[in-house]
Amino acid sequence: MSVDGKHEGLLVWQEEPFNAEPPLDLLRENFVTPTELFFARNHAPFPAVDPSQYRLSIGGLVERALSLSLEEIREQFPRRTQLVTLQCAGNRRQELMEVAPIPGEVSWGLAAVSNAEWAGVALRDLLLAAGIAEEGRHVAFLGLDEVEKHGERFGFGGSIPLRKALEAEVLLAYEMNGAPLSPAHGYPLRAVVPGYIGARSVKWLSEITVQRKPSSNYYQAHAYKLFPPHVTQETVDWERGLMLGELPVNAVICHPREGEPVPAGPVRVQGYAITGGNRTVERVDLSLDGGETWQVAELAGDALPGAWRFWEATVMLPAGETQVLARAWDSSANTQPEQVAPLWNFKGYANNAWHRVMVTVSPT
Amino acid sequence: MSVDGKHEGLLVWQEEPFNAEPPLDLLRENFVTPTELFFARNHAPFPAVDPSQYRLSIGGLVERALSLSLEEIREQFPRRTQLVTLQCAGNRRQELMEVAPIPGEVSWGLAAVSNAEWAGVALRDLLLAAGIAEEGRHVAFLGLDEVEKHGERFGFGGSIPLRKALEAEVLLAYEMNGAPLSPAHGYPLRAVVPGYIGARSVKWLSEITVQRKPSSNYYQAHAYKLFPPHVTQETVDWERGLMLGELPVNAVICHPREGEPVPAGPVRVQGYAITGGNRTVERVDLSLDGGETWQVAELAGDALPGAWRFWEATVMLPAGETQVLARAWDSSANTQPEQVAPLWNFKGYANNAWHRVMVTVSPT
Repeated sequence: MSVDGKHEGLLVWQEEPFNAEPPLDLLRENFVTPTELFFARNHAPFPAVDPSQYRLSIGGLVERALSLSLEEIREQFPRRTQLVTLQCAGNRRQELMEVAPIPGEVSWGLAAVSNAEWAGVALRDLLLAAGIAEEGRHVAFLGLDEVEKHGERFGFGGSIPLRKALEAEVLLAYEMNGAPLSPAHGYPLRAVVPGYIGARSVKWLSEITVQRKPSSNYYQAHAYKLFPPHVTQETVDWERGLMLGELPVNAVICHPREGEPVPAGPVRVQGYAITGGNRTVERVDLSLDGGETWQVAELAGDALPGAWRFWEATVMLPAGETQVLARAWDSSANTQPEQVAPLWNFKGYANNAWHRVMVTVSPT
Repeated sequence: MSVDGKHEGLLVWQEEPFNAEPPLDLLRENFVTPTELFFARNHAPFPAVDPSQYRLSIGGLVERALSLSLEEIREQFPRRTQLVTLQCAGNRRQELMEVAPIPGEVSWGLAAVSNAEWAGVALRDLLLAAGIAEEGRHVAFLGLDEVEKHGERFGFGGSIPLRKALEAEVLLAYEMNGAPLSPAHGYPLRAVVPGYIGARSVKWLSEITVQRKPSSNYYQAHAYKLFPPHVTQETVDWERGLMLGELPVNAVICHPREGEPVPAGPVRVQGYAITGGNRTVERVDLSLDGGETWQVAELAGDALPGAWRFWEATVMLPAGETQVLARAWDSSANTQPEQVAPLWNFKGYANNAWHRVMVTVSPT
């Protein structure tokens, strides 16, 4: 199976809904991920949208509800571009699954994350045009896709705090990497929320609602919540979970890959690091001795809030097997926890333990 | 020695400059810390300020430089109150010092942190009155105290990003807990920056400068930077450190204390947790088996950005010694790293490893 415009080499976890991540080595080749390689996370088939009939509604706690055509959105509001990395809350779930099973969830590896240049309008500009009522605290998004769940059909939805929604960098995007959004990535319009889990960047966007509380959509009120390790599908009280929003700090080694043999001599280690909110990745450390001693990696490019940061380092490895591990630090002095097991949660979210790769050096 | 208005029971690490923290059990008694117990972190003697001569200057990249008397500040700008917890970047340094020596720094225990209700004006309001030039990116503060360092005398200073400075919650405070600021806490005016290391909340404030770059003051450009474990005073390149700003997530067990004998039966464990930026503490977990299994603590009150959160739990401990440990999670799904050693840095900042306390239960 293939999806129009997507790379043949994607690791397709599910065909319908379409869930796929790029091979890690290809992902690390480009700071701006080519659209064909951009990971895909969906909960329903792509909706077919007739652009001439399309309207975006903005309502709820606003002074004047709006209903806008694509043309009105493009013409009435200034165009903005923004580099934004999206990451699925379930990125690195595979490592959690090795601790204990997580049934019913996609077994994402290390590449449910990608970076693109988005163009569109600032959500802020539309909200200010509608006028926000004093009681407004959250901005909810609803998509045109049709999820089937528990005998009901509904659009995928989610929300972000109003404070975040008013930041100029939160976009309603109609272009991705210089081309109109493809059906796979939310044509004709999608939210793009920098520094938040990908689920809040709702695709095929049809409704924006300003409200007192977070969205009551299944994907805000039930899924995408973080629970402690002892809670299971059987014992969960959905009200009590930590509603995911901003991403935690994370670093992933992309090269060498686990078990990949490398020739003797200096080894180039490369990866990406990411953090949430408006924070930036400020340092990546590597260790070859389980965290006893550390070597600081070189960071590529500037520290950009909302975007990942590439890093690399040259390490000297002895012949045989060595575990290489990485941890990142962000501008809030947050760093990553050491082990995966204490992070285990039955939905498999937010794994940001030190990333460990066993590298095999051929004897000379 | 005692300082006017401060509690006799404070643990005084240094008399001049005055550096002291409250006993942990007294700290945990009040969600709003009484001023007499509020920790004190200083780099110079308290300056004597004549309120009738006092002027606050606002300059640099602004449209009109301002020089304001106390009366003008109070009368021309709306009064705002804000609950803000300040925490020294060196809180929990003692545990880092147990890993390896950190000469020349205060050996803060677990209580270089306190919470107060501040009243004053929003920094934002003054900045908007001055008008910010387009190139402005950082807002620098300078105090009236006189630090002696490397043969020079200068006021303590620091800066915050303009984006932060424009948040309504950043205050220039003239009151603390319903009374005028005391000389020990910055009379007549101080910055109060929620969610940032305490060092950015400059006391005895005299100058505000809007500028392109962060402050070049010693305490922004050299001190209060985070370095990797292998960097020492001898090898440091000050340019390369992570400039501390927003606090990382942290949790501390206040009761029982290390080694404190408790009677057999249910043990009430109590503590505080804190995080940075506008994030909130969303969960605190306790473990009695080194992180294998976890129990979720009860959180007190609401999740307030910029303020700490009290928590407590009842645990069952066997007779003898048990290590109780705590970790917090914030709204960004960041949690704490496990061990202190991999966080060691030669200035002793930002220790947020799992807090571990050995509790001794008397046999029944």
